[in-house]
Amino acid sequence: SGLVHIKNPHLEAMEEDVLYHLDLGTKTHNLPAMFGDIKFVCVGGSPNRMRAFAQFMHKELGLEGDGEDLADICAGTDRYAMYRVGPVLSISHGMGIPSISIMLHELIKLLHHAKCRDVTIIRIGTSGGLGVDAGSVVITDRAVDACFQPRFEQVVLGDVVVRGTDLDSGLVEELLACSKGIPDFPTLVGHTMCTYDFYEGQGRLDGALCSFSTEKKLEYLKRAHDAGVRNIEMESTAFAALCGLCGLRGKS
Amino acid sequence: SGLVHIKNPHLEAMEEDVLYHLDLGTKTHNLPAMFGDIKFVCVGGSPNRMRAFAQFMHKELGLEGDGEDLADICAGTDRYAMYRVGPVLSISHGMGIPSISIMLHELIKLLHHAKCRDVTIIRIGTSGGLGVDAGSVVITDRAVDACFQPRFEQVVLGDVVVRGTDLDSGLVEELLACSKGIPDFPTLVGHTMCTYDFYEGQGRLDGALCSFSTEKKLEYLKRAHDAGVRNIEMESTAFAALCGLCGLRGKS
Repeated sequence: SGLVHIKNPHLEAMEEDVLYHLDLGTKTHNLPAMFGDIKFVCVGGSPNRMRAFAQFMHKELGLEGDGEDLADICAGTDRYAMYRVGPVLSISHGMGIPSISIMLHELIKLLHHAKCRDVTIIRIGTSGGLGVDAGSVVITDRAVDACFQPRFEQVVLGDVVVRGTDLDSGLVEELLACSKGIPDFPTLVGHTMCTYDFYEGQGRLDGALCSFSTEKKLEYLKRAHDAGVRNIEMESTAFAALCGLCGLRGKS
Repeated sequence: SGLVHIKNPHLEAMEEDVLYHLDLGTKTHNLPAMFGDIKFVCVGGSPNRMRAFAQFMHKELGLEGDGEDLADICAGTDRYAMYRVGPVLSISHGMGIPSISIMLHELIKLLHHAKCRDVTIIRIGTSGGLGVDAGSVVITDRAVDACFQPRFEQVVLGDVVVRGTDLDSGLVEELLACSKGIPDFPTLVGHTMCTYDFYEGQGRLDGALCSFSTEKKLEYLKRAHDAGVRNIEMESTAFAALCGLCGLRGKS
């Protein structure tokens, strides 16, 4: 049907659903009217950057006006920022798995309540490249954890639940094909590693804590590269797991 | 000596330290002049709330002016917001362990470079109460993970490192004593549970995914309460571990 799947039997029985961190809700807003025709959702960490992306899309889509006055749909909260441009929704998610998870739970419910169909979701974010030229775009074919495994482990009521991190392979091919028409920057397909920590977790030597040598760092990054990792960030496994479970065509 | 301890042998050899996510650095800013006399650091999730807290402190400290024009020291980035009022620094950290960890690494280096002494750091944030009246203030005596253990597990170069989450017990007593003079809201001491997920991780029934029953949820929360947990949030174990390792007197 192309609809978003909510995997929560409790939700239908709720009289009202407040999307607290987005400052939206089923009783306070007409979500089908506001979002029913959304086809693309682009997410990234920084609110300013997602605003700039929305303004860029405004120009690309040839919409009227200069896009300078785009309103933040989530202006009532400073947790996330959201902009709408034609069929495209641009949303910030902050940094790290817990932050993107809160946003995705509420975004997925939003798309469900709005009865959106055939939505494609793409995470566009900065990441540390591994053996690739600076400025390269890495299209993720597989999100892996810090042990290079395609899994997202989460604690639910004290028990560890392991989820897959499959992404849409057709979308990978489409995005790669699009990149062929843009000569300005190198684009490649590879695995993306997701960590919970920016400094120690990604082998950086310049945090407040660092207990390893340059050699150990390089050895770890070489192992990651040998496993197919081409960039490192902090959200992709949760993004892939949540979008995959809810039937959203996703790409990080 | 009361100084902040950096546990990173690589740092002294670096010519410049860029605190990237704070938009500060050792070559671009005179950190000792800007921050050398800071004695208290208060951190919380939301940038707007940390601004409001700084304005509140401005009034409490009887400083000149109305505090309306406080400048965001990190205005060059939208990752975090930072305000200074007298000896108090008020900083936002976003949501979740990865987000607060990035901020704390850079904050701890900032306090080190600025040669601050005897700094007390306090996290003030919203949290879900467990068996306590709404509006209560919980002073954390112990930060525990989703299995009610006082530990912070982190993956460093692919290996799990386990860190303690001790907080300053003298500070707990001091804060509790302060609360006695404020009759407006109930204050208690208890354990604070830290989760990686807001919806499934905290037993909520209204996320996009929920695979458990109301009974299982209540059973888990009862076990948490029996283990001494009085509130649930998403940053305390990382806060306690990082501040503890670096010699900051901390309280969540």
